[in-house]
Amino acid sequence: MPREFTDAERERIRERLRETGRDLFARYGLAKTTIADLTDPAGVADSTFYTFYDSKEALYLELLEEEGEAIADRVVGASFERHDDPERAIAAFLRTICEAVETDPLVRRLVVEDELDRLRDRLSDAELAADRQQSVGYFLPYVEAWHEAGRLRGPDPETVAHAIRAVTFLTLHEEDVGEERYAAVRELLVDAVAAGLATPADGSPADG
Amino acid sequence: MPREFTDAERERIRERLRETGRDLFARYGLAKTTIADLTDPAGVADSTFYTFYDSKEALYLELLEEEGEAIADRVVGASFERHDDPERAIAAFLRTICEAVETDPLVRRLVVEDELDRLRDRLSDAELAADRQQSVGYFLPYVEAWHEAGRLRGPDPETVAHAIRAVTFLTLHEEDVGEERYAAVRELLVDAVAAGLATPADGSPADG
Repeated sequence: MPREFTDAERERIRERLRETGRDLFARYGLAKTTIADLTDPAGVADSTFYTFYDSKEALYLELLEEEGEAIADRVVGASFERHDDPERAIAAFLRTICEAVETDPLVRRLVVEDELDRLRDRLSDAELAADRQQSVGYFLPYVEAWHEAGRLRGPDPETVAHAIRAVTFLTLHEEDVGEERYAAVRELLVDAVAAGLATPADGSPADG
Repeated sequence: MPREFTDAERERIRERLRETGRDLFARYGLAKTTIADLTDPAGVADSTFYTFYDSKEALYLELLEEEGEAIADRVVGASFERHDDPERAIAAFLRTICEAVETDPLVRRLVVEDELDRLRDRLSDAELAADRQQSVGYFLPYVEAWHEAGRLRGPDPETVAHAIRAVTFLTLHEEDVGEERYAAVRELLVDAVAAGLATPADGSPADG
């Protein structure tokens, strides 16, 4: 019969699992980290893990989402909050978020170990849709205001926001682009997308 | 001791292996297709397969590259060869190549089954680099001429060409973008990249 923990004990165990996960996932990746690796430092049995999370993937996801929120706050502050010009704001946003994603140990490990598909497979369509909405939610209000003012190309603000988000998938293709030229390609694409989405100040579409 | 085949027999067997591969890979994917599945219709032993290809991945790659060449010829004809305007040419190129890739059965199967990483892992860095150069080679001359004439943004023609190619990786992220809005997002990004890469006719950069 499993031992019962007090609320304070559960809180401590959860925090320990998260700390251990953040460390081991970043160092060894999802596949090489076992449930026992995660529970050992907390001094609890494997079975106890499952009273907190459905799987190690669920823990990874929780950590990633938390990391994502911290990154988003920082990135929106350095882009949409700072620049009153859509081209500058979008370019700053994409540049900063790509750099953040490229250097984040939890994200890097997923990409390097090709474990992203595995993690994605564990998510339901509803969870994936919620995640997408959350990612664009951070900057959608800015896009809505600029689109309304005729300063952004595109059929509607949601499509513009999701198109901006889609550029960040480039960070998953460093190897496909070629490492030696990745930085220059990313830089150029970010500038081109920002310029191409922004319409000139007179409100007419950039491409006439 | 393996039976020796005449040149004509080898030619016939190779063609049969390729036909079978094209059919089975598109229908069942790489993982579910065995060497025996591939050799049975040709009436040869499993071991004979390896006198033609190092692995089933090598056969898949040969078929993909051939498919890629046919697609590239068609797409360049409908874009860079047809339009004397960089924005129109790049937009037509990206739109046509994305549609081709999205509907090609061999490519679709790789994406749907998450087998792309597996295929990529079988390739050496030199093979990957050669493949990249080949992909941009089809349209690099057009990019060079326009860049020289000041009609394209970017540090050099190679970076511009690889940036254009990088947009096609979006086709791998239909699910990440969300299937219900993928078409609209792809359309907008293609237009934005084309407009953002092209500089106005006076030769000054679009973003001033």
